[in-house]
Amino acid sequence: MRQCTAFLVSKEKMSYTAPTKDMLFAMQNLAGLARISTLPGFEDATLETVEAVLHEAAKFHSEVVAPLNVVGDKAPSSWHDGEVRTTAGFRDAFRQFGEGGWQGIVHPTQFGGQGLPKLIGTPCTEMLHAANMSFGLCGLLTDGAIEALLTAGSDELKQRYLPRLIAGEWTGTMNLTEPQAGSDLALVRTRAERQADNSYKVSGTKIFITYGEHDMAENIVHLVLARTPGAPDGVKGISLFLVPKFLVNSDGSLGARNDVECVSIEHKLGIKASPTAVLQFGDNGGAVGYLVGEESRGLEYMFIMMNSARFAVGVQGIAVSERAYQQAAAYAKERIQSRPVDGSVKEAVPIIRHPDVRRMLTEMRALTEGARALALVAASYSDIAHAAAEDETRAQYTAAYEYLVPIIKGWSTEMSVEVTSLGVQIHGGMGFIEETGAAQHYRDARILPIYEGTTAIQANDLVGRKTVRDGGAAARAILSQIDDMLAALAMRGAQPVCSVMYARLSAGHTALASVVDFVVNNARTDANAVFGVSVAYLKLAGIVLTGWQMARSLLVAIEKHDEDPDFYSAKIATADFFANQILVRAPGIEAAITSASGTDGYLTLSDTQF
Amino acid sequence: MRQCTAFLVSKEKMSYTAPTKDMLFAMQNLAGLARISTLPGFEDATLETVEAVLHEAAKFHSEVVAPLNVVGDKAPSSWHDGEVRTTAGFRDAFRQFGEGGWQGIVHPTQFGGQGLPKLIGTPCTEMLHAANMSFGLCGLLTDGAIEALLTAGSDELKQRYLPRLIAGEWTGTMNLTEPQAGSDLALVRTRAERQADNSYKVSGTKIFITYGEHDMAENIVHLVLARTPGAPDGVKGISLFLVPKFLVNSDGSLGARNDVECVSIEHKLGIKASPTAVLQFGDNGGAVGYLVGEESRGLEYMFIMMNSARFAVGVQGIAVSERAYQQAAAYAKERIQSRPVDGSVKEAVPIIRHPDVRRMLTEMRALTEGARALALVAASYSDIAHAAAEDETRAQYTAAYEYLVPIIKGWSTEMSVEVTSLGVQIHGGMGFIEETGAAQHYRDARILPIYEGTTAIQANDLVGRKTVRDGGAAARAILSQIDDMLAALAMRGAQPVCSVMYARLSAGHTALASVVDFVVNNARTDANAVFGVSVAYLKLAGIVLTGWQMARSLLVAIEKHDEDPDFYSAKIATADFFANQILVRAPGIEAAITSASGTDGYLTLSDTQF
Repeated sequence: MRQCTAFLVSKEKMSYTAPTKDMLFAMQNLAGLARISTLPGFEDATLETVEAVLHEAAKFHSEVVAPLNVVGDKAPSSWHDGEVRTTAGFRDAFRQFGEGGWQGIVHPTQFGGQGLPKLIGTPCTEMLHAANMSFGLCGLLTDGAIEALLTAGSDELKQRYLPRLIAGEWTGTMNLTEPQAGSDLALVRTRAERQADNSYKVSGTKIFITYGEHDMAENIVHLVLARTPGAPDGVKGISLFLVPKFLVNSDGSLGARNDVECVSIEHKLGIKASPTAVLQFGDNGGAVGYLVGEESRGLEYMFIMMNSARFAVGVQGIAVSERAYQQAAAYAKERIQSRPVDGSVKEAVPIIRHPDVRRMLTEMRALTEGARALALVAASYSDIAHAAAEDETRAQYTAAYEYLVPIIKGWSTEMSVEVTSLGVQIHGGMGFIEETGAAQHYRDARILPIYEGTTAIQANDLVGRKTVRDGGAAARAILSQIDDMLAALAMRGAQPVCSVMYARLSAGHTALASVVDFVVNNARTDANAVFGVSVAYLKLAGIVLTGWQMARSLLVAIEKHDEDPDFYSAKIATADFFANQILVRAPGIEAAITSASGTDGYLTLSDTQF
Repeated sequence: MRQCTAFLVSKEKMSYTAPTKDMLFAMQNLAGLARISTLPGFEDATLETVEAVLHEAAKFHSEVVAPLNVVGDKAPSSWHDGEVRTTAGFRDAFRQFGEGGWQGIVHPTQFGGQGLPKLIGTPCTEMLHAANMSFGLCGLLTDGAIEALLTAGSDELKQRYLPRLIAGEWTGTMNLTEPQAGSDLALVRTRAERQADNSYKVSGTKIFITYGEHDMAENIVHLVLARTPGAPDGVKGISLFLVPKFLVNSDGSLGARNDVECVSIEHKLGIKASPTAVLQFGDNGGAVGYLVGEESRGLEYMFIMMNSARFAVGVQGIAVSERAYQQAAAYAKERIQSRPVDGSVKEAVPIIRHPDVRRMLTEMRALTEGARALALVAASYSDIAHAAAEDETRAQYTAAYEYLVPIIKGWSTEMSVEVTSLGVQIHGGMGFIEETGAAQHYRDARILPIYEGTTAIQANDLVGRKTVRDGGAAARAILSQIDDMLAALAMRGAQPVCSVMYARLSAGHTALASVVDFVVNNARTDANAVFGVSVAYLKLAGIVLTGWQMARSLLVAIEKHDEDPDFYSAKIATADFFANQILVRAPGIEAAITSASGTDGYLTLSDTQF
C-alpha cells in the first residue's frame, strides 16, 4: 500500500516546544511574579528559580511526554477482565513525572511537595497538557484527590495517603457521576454504611471515572460521593469517602484488593489514551471506605476539589490550543500553495503568506495567549488569596479568583474548540486525515467544555454564586481595574494601536458592565431569561477580560519594544488583532443578552414543538 | 464486559425523520414553488407531484439509507490490493437509490432522468445526506460528472455514459487534487497525450478522490484534470478527460480494465464509510482517456461542476445539522437532570426544560432552518436562471444565484460545525462517548468547510468574482429585496416580534451594505486587508441573508398562525430567536471588517514571528 507523500508529516510539525518566553512575559508583567515571591512561604520563588523550573518542565514534557501523544491516540488504553493496560510508554513516563517532582509542584513540602505558588505550577500544568492531555489527566485527578485530603482529611488519612500521592507513586480519582446522575448530584445513589471499626462499606456504580483503573501506579485512591443511611435527600445528604484500590496496612504497605471493580472503559471521541472507567463498588460485600471530613459535607469538599480541577481544565484548553497553534504554524510555513492575492509574487508561496491563513493563525494565537495571560493572573490571585498576610487582601483576592474560575474554565475550553478547529482548517484536506495529527487536537479538545461541569454549569455558577450573590461586587471590582487600564491607554492615545485598543476595550467595558447589571437585576425575577443567556454572559466576560490582559500586554510591549523587537512587535500585532477582530464583537453580545426576556418564544414553546 | 445502561441509545434517538413540513413551507412560501411550476419544462412540478416526491424520498432515505449511517462509521470502507470494499449494505442501498430514480431526479429526461427543477431536487439531496453523508457522497460526485458531460461532452460521450450514470448503474468522480496541488490547480502535473485514435494516454497521481474506487457499481467514470504536451503553464493549460475504470465497448458493454489503480484510501476524522482514494493513472503504459469539450478549457468545465457540487456541499451542511438537531432534541426530552432554575418544579426535569439547553436547541434549529430556507430560495433562482423565457430574467437570476453559491457553501458548512458541536454539548458527557452517535455528526461535518473549496476559497470567490467584478451589483440587488422586506415589517410594527425583527434586520442590512462598499472600494487597492476579512464578510452575508429569510418566514407564520398554531408559533419563536441572538451580532462583524487595513500588524509580521 503506497502512502501519499503529502501525508508524511515532519517530526517538527508533530513536536511541542513549551512557550516559556510568553509564559514568563505574562508571569512577570501581568501576573506580578515579583509580588508573589514576597508572600509568606513563597520567598524561594525568585525569578531565577522560576526560570529553572520552567526550563526543566519544558525539557521533560517536550522530550518525554509529548512524543507519546500520537502514540496514545493510535493505541489507547485497553480493558481486559477488569484490568486496564495503558498505552506503551505511559507507565514509565508517569514514573519519571513523579520522580521529577511534577506531581508535587504546588503541594505542601510537609508531605513531600515543592510548595511552589500556583503561578509557577500553572505554566507547568499547561506544558503537561499541551504535551499530552490524555497522560496529563492522571496527574490532574490526583491533584484533585490531594486537595480534598488536604482540605478535609483526618491526620491519619493525610499521613497515610498524601506522601504517596504527592510523590506520584499512587494516583487519585474523583467519583461523582452515576448513570442517572450527571451534573445533578442530588440524584446520587451510591451508599456507604458505617461499620463497627468506623470504616464504611461502599456500594454502587460510578461512571466517567477518569483513570478509574490503570497500570501506571501501585495503588489508586478513589474519592467517592455516597449517601449514608438516613441522610437527608438531595445534595445535603452526600458524604465523601476515600476508597483505595488496595487496602493500606498501618505500616504503609499494600494489603488486600478492595471490592471495587472496573467493569468497562468507554470508547471516546478523543483523549483516547486516558481510560474512562465504569466502576462497580461493593459487588462482593462492600468496598472498604473511610470518611473524609464529616458526614453530609461531601458536596462542600467536592466543590473545593472541583474549583481546583475546573481551573486546571481551563488550562487544558489553553494547552491544547497552543499545541494546535504550533502545529498549524509549522504546516503553514511549509505548505506551498497559490500566488499571493496582492500580486507581489508571481509563483505559489507558503500558505502563511495568504491573509486568511494569517488571520486564522493570529486568531488562534490571540485567543491562546490571551487566555493564558488571564489564567496566570487568576493563579496569582489564588496565591495572594492563600498567602497574603492581611485578612482583607485575602478576602478581596478570594472573591476575584472565584469570579474568574468559571470564566477560565468555560471560556478557555470553548475557545479551544474553535482554535483546534481553525488548526484543522489551516491544514485543509490534510487536516481531515488522521495521520497529520491536527484532528486529534480537535477531538481531544471537545471534552473540555463538558467535563468538570459543562459550560452551562460554569455559566450558572458565574451568574448565581459569583455575580448575583454579592450583587455584582466582584465583577465590578474587576471592571474598575479595567477603568484604570483605560486611563493608561488614553494617555497613549497618540499611538493608533492604543487609540484602537482604547475604543474597543472601552466598548467592551460598557458592554460587560451593562450585562452585570442586567444579570443582577433580573436573575431572581426572570430566571429563565437570564439563564438562557448565561453562556453568552460567560463568553462576553471571557472576551472582555482577555481584552483587558491584551491591553496590558500592549502597553508593556510598546515600552519594551526595542529590547526584543521580534517578540514585542508580535505581541503588539496580536493585541491589535484581538481588539479589532474579537473584542470589537462585545457590544453585539451585550445586545443579544440584554434583549432576553422570560417571555421569549423559545422559552415558552412546549417540549413537543422541538 | 458490562455496558453502562446510560449509553443504551434508543432507536428513536438514532433515527431520522425528514423535515418534509418545513421543506414544503420554505418551498411554497419563500422559494415560490408556484412560479417554478409555470416555467417551461417544469409544468409537471405541481404541488401534488412535489408532495408525492418528498414523501417517497423521505420514506426511502429514512428507512433504507439512514440506518446504515452508524454502521458505516463503525465499519468503514476497506482497501485490499487495489480493491475497495464498502460497508455492508451500501451496495444494495445504492442499487435501490438508482432504481428509485433518485440519482436522476434533476437530470434531463432525454437521458433517463426525471427532469425536475432544482427546487425539488434540493430537499431530496438534503434527505440523502441527513440520512447518511458518507453514502450520499457517491451520488453527489456522480451528479458532478453528469453536469460536466452535459455541459461539454461530445454527443458520443453523452450517449455512452449519461444514461448509465443517471440510472445509478455507474458512478462518477472528480479528479482535481494532486499531492502538490490542493486548491491551486495551476500546479497540476497529471499528463495526457493524444493518440492516433484521438483518445489520450493519461498518467499521474490524484489524491482525495471521493469514491475513487468502490464495489457499489459496475463501472466508475473518472473526470480528470490533466495537461496536454505543449499546453501553457498554469490553469490555462488544463484539460478535462473522461477516464473509465473499465473501457466501454461501442455496444455499451464493458471491456478491458483501464490503467488506473487505487493505491490506498485515507484514514479520516469522519465520513469514514466514504472511500477517499489515491488514484494512480498510467503506471502500465497510460490510462485511456477521452477529451471532454476542447483542450485547455478544463478549468472552465470544472467550475461548472464545482458550482453544482459546492451548492450540494452547502446542503450537506444543512442535512447533518438537521440530523444532529433531531438527535439532540430527542435526547433532551428523555434525559432527566436537575430542577428548573425558576423553581417551578421541585424535582429533576427533562433537560429540555433548562433555558440553556433550550437555547442550544433553538440555535441549532434556527441556523438549520434558516440555511435551508436560503438554499431553497437559491435553488429556485437557479431554476429561473435556466428555464425562464426572457434573457433578462435569466441573466438577473443567474447573477443572484452565483452570488449566493459561495455563501451557501461557506456559511451552511461553517454553521454545521457549530450546530453539530452544540449537538454534542447537549448530550454532555454522553456526547463524547462514540456509542451515542452525536460525535459522528461532529466528525462528519468537519470536512464540509474544507472540501470543494475551503471557506477561504468560497470567500475569495465571493469577494472577487461575485462582488468586485460587478462592482457590487448582485449584492445590492439582494440588499434592495431586503429593503422591501423591511417595509413590509414596518407595516407590522405594532407586533413586538415584528418591530424586533425590523430593528435587527435593518441593522444587518446597513452592516452588509457597508461591507459590500468596503469590499468594492478596497479589494484592488488593499487586497491583503480585504482578503484578511473575506471570511468575516461571507459569514456576515450568511447571517444577514438568513435573517432575511427568517423575516419572511415570520410574516408568513403570523398570517397563517391559526391554521396550525403549533407549527407556526414555533416558526415565530425561531425567527425571533434568530433576530435577537444571531442577527443582532451583525454590526459587530461589520466593525471588525471595516476596521481592516493592509498595514495591520498581523499582515506585516515576518513568517518567523509565528
